[in-house]
Amino acid sequence: MSTSHSLSGNAVIGQSGGPTAVINQSLVGVIEGLAGASCIDKILGAHHAVAGIVKNDFIELQDIPAERLERLALTPSAALGSSRDKPDADYCNRILKSFEKNNIRYFFYIGGNDSSDTCRIVNELAKADNYELRCFHVPKTIDNDLVNNDHTPGFGSAAKFVAQAFIGDNLDNRALPGIKINIIMGRHAGFLTAASMLARQHADDGPHLIYVPEAAFDLEKFKDDVAKIYGRLGRCLIAVSEGIHDKDGTPMMTKLATSVEKDAHGNVQLSGTGALGDHLADALKDHLGKDTRVRADTFGYLQRCFAGCVSQTDAHEARLAGRKAAEYALADDCDGSIAIQRVSNKPYEVEYKRIELTDVAAKTQTLDPKYIVHGNNIDPSFKDYLGPIVGDLPVVESLRVH
Amino acid sequence: MSTSHSLSGNAVIGQSGGPTAVINQSLVGVIEGLAGASCIDKILGAHHAVAGIVKNDFIELQDIPAERLERLALTPSAALGSSRDKPDADYCNRILKSFEKNNIRYFFYIGGNDSSDTCRIVNELAKADNYELRCFHVPKTIDNDLVNNDHTPGFGSAAKFVAQAFIGDNLDNRALPGIKINIIMGRHAGFLTAASMLARQHADDGPHLIYVPEAAFDLEKFKDDVAKIYGRLGRCLIAVSEGIHDKDGTPMMTKLATSVEKDAHGNVQLSGTGALGDHLADALKDHLGKDTRVRADTFGYLQRCFAGCVSQTDAHEARLAGRKAAEYALADDCDGSIAIQRVSNKPYEVEYKRIELTDVAAKTQTLDPKYIVHGNNIDPSFKDYLGPIVGDLPVVESLRVH
Repeated sequence: MSTSHSLSGNAVIGQSGGPTAVINQSLVGVIEGLAGASCIDKILGAHHAVAGIVKNDFIELQDIPAERLERLALTPSAALGSSRDKPDADYCNRILKSFEKNNIRYFFYIGGNDSSDTCRIVNELAKADNYELRCFHVPKTIDNDLVNNDHTPGFGSAAKFVAQAFIGDNLDNRALPGIKINIIMGRHAGFLTAASMLARQHADDGPHLIYVPEAAFDLEKFKDDVAKIYGRLGRCLIAVSEGIHDKDGTPMMTKLATSVEKDAHGNVQLSGTGALGDHLADALKDHLGKDTRVRADTFGYLQRCFAGCVSQTDAHEARLAGRKAAEYALADDCDGSIAIQRVSNKPYEVEYKRIELTDVAAKTQTLDPKYIVHGNNIDPSFKDYLGPIVGDLPVVESLRVH
Repeated sequence: MSTSHSLSGNAVIGQSGGPTAVINQSLVGVIEGLAGASCIDKILGAHHAVAGIVKNDFIELQDIPAERLERLALTPSAALGSSRDKPDADYCNRILKSFEKNNIRYFFYIGGNDSSDTCRIVNELAKADNYELRCFHVPKTIDNDLVNNDHTPGFGSAAKFVAQAFIGDNLDNRALPGIKINIIMGRHAGFLTAASMLARQHADDGPHLIYVPEAAFDLEKFKDDVAKIYGRLGRCLIAVSEGIHDKDGTPMMTKLATSVEKDAHGNVQLSGTGALGDHLADALKDHLGKDTRVRADTFGYLQRCFAGCVSQTDAHEARLAGRKAAEYALADDCDGSIAIQRVSNKPYEVEYKRIELTDVAAKTQTLDPKYIVHGNNIDPSFKDYLGPIVGDLPVVESLRVH
């Protein structure tokens, strides 16, 4: 799209999809990046993302004092409100109409791969309509599944939560031995589940087994895997992605819900929030004996918005991703997405590159197979990748009680 | 029991029941309190509590360097290992035999009301046997349900976890409105569930409804309660204790599992880890329409051992409770339990009193009815009680988006 550098008008920012602990950092980053630009009139926040845009439901953001912005940046979840709407062409046309009506010339959309696709469609419609518009996608997802990104804002803090949860739960499982299954978010990508490996500090620390969606799940092998660890250690801590599926791609959540054994009343269990963990626990009890102590927890929403568990690296990068999007949009005649790419690991350093919207839109990154061991674990080398993103974790002491 | 102040021999410490984030503080407190006492030969840790005592499975603790003790104190869960064993008279006799065999003259048992009862029984058996023994119970329970205590070590940190989880989840629920149910630990006492009220910082912040086991639960009233809030705010965040029961005392976890509607296959849901939340969510969907966005999470074990979420007050008090038990045992010819009692609220100050084992053993404290409002909420005055125990919480900023 051909635009001048001094394209004047209003800017709008939206926050889309599942909230994270640092998505407000990116919001504040965009606001800071736009502050003082003479070509920007109002900085608008879209209430509940695209849903607010099509309803002309905006809040003005340009006059918020710096100290309030800073508190906002430290606040988890999406302060503007979010949306699960996945706009089709017609919806995107309504977005464009709202932009034209409100003289919005800068569009910043903080979200995952669906959100980048919305950016792409709106951008293409604007071009076709000869409406000058700069569209920037700012990455965000705890799933860490955006292509062309080393990692994504939101993931580091969620991974820190998972790691801290496993540090505690491993000690809990040591104190009261048994089998413990923890179900982690991530339908298609296993990054967050794999992050549980950071909990290992001492010999025989859990998680002892890690199952990600990138490896086909086999219930019989699972039972054998657990039986071996349990036989050796008298306990077993297991990280399981909610998205595990069999070799044909059928999610275990569905499969187990329809093939489980009946109870004394001849009734079968259904799927539900805690169902995957419960089904796996039942399968293990059948295999190892009804008296085996087996428990399952599903971490649920706590993973993405827990207040007070933020990776400082993640917070910093989320802020900069937003700021860079604003700077690119103001400085150059361009659209795109901000991609975080690792320049070096020691010392850890990243750069914030502009990539085309089509380079990220609607694509899904998954865990590199080199990190997946025997389909039931994560290689120690994953820590080199993950460690700097998560930052310092609580270090625990052990009495080395057997 | 008549003993001299210079009763000489070994000491043993055990950690019992569900672990907490600060139970190792109490362990270290006892060790510190005994350190240097000429009448103490070895300080033994019982591996897995009473189970280790009867198996002569001990670890020596008297020579651990101070800096390692300090790291141990900061480590969640029970470093000695714990046990769910609830000793009967015969089991307690075996404990006493182990004490006699190992010349154990000081017994410190860190645990809840069952553990204090074990102390009481062992103490009485020792008296009957004319075996000189000093028995001290050190309070610990995230349930906060010990009588004659203002509150108990472990509760403050678990309450902090629940509050921080709700601070985040309230913002999550604001961003993506719907109905969210969170199931909190506590079979008989609602303190931990009530702690969710600390998450309220701004107008209309959740939790909007709080259900504790101290108030009879009525499913029809629950559905009406939620419908009202949901109608007014377009969202509803709900804290539910796992121990809620109907007016006849039947746990809802059991009741809902046997009386729920059948699915398309004519099958009924069973109980499980996430079952209570799922059943309540299903009931709300039936009431408000299948398209209503209803989610449920069960916080599970994360509440008691999450690494990196500790109330400093709780950590300090857990340490002192252990130290005081050692000091009482060494200084006076007495047995007992350490009771934390509040001396003043502003400034917050507690004392560590010695009470008789029979004053705490096998009794259960529940939430004062004055804090329970309409059977579905917690009075703001509960914050005066709870605030100092939990300490500072993350303060969040709002754009006051409607």
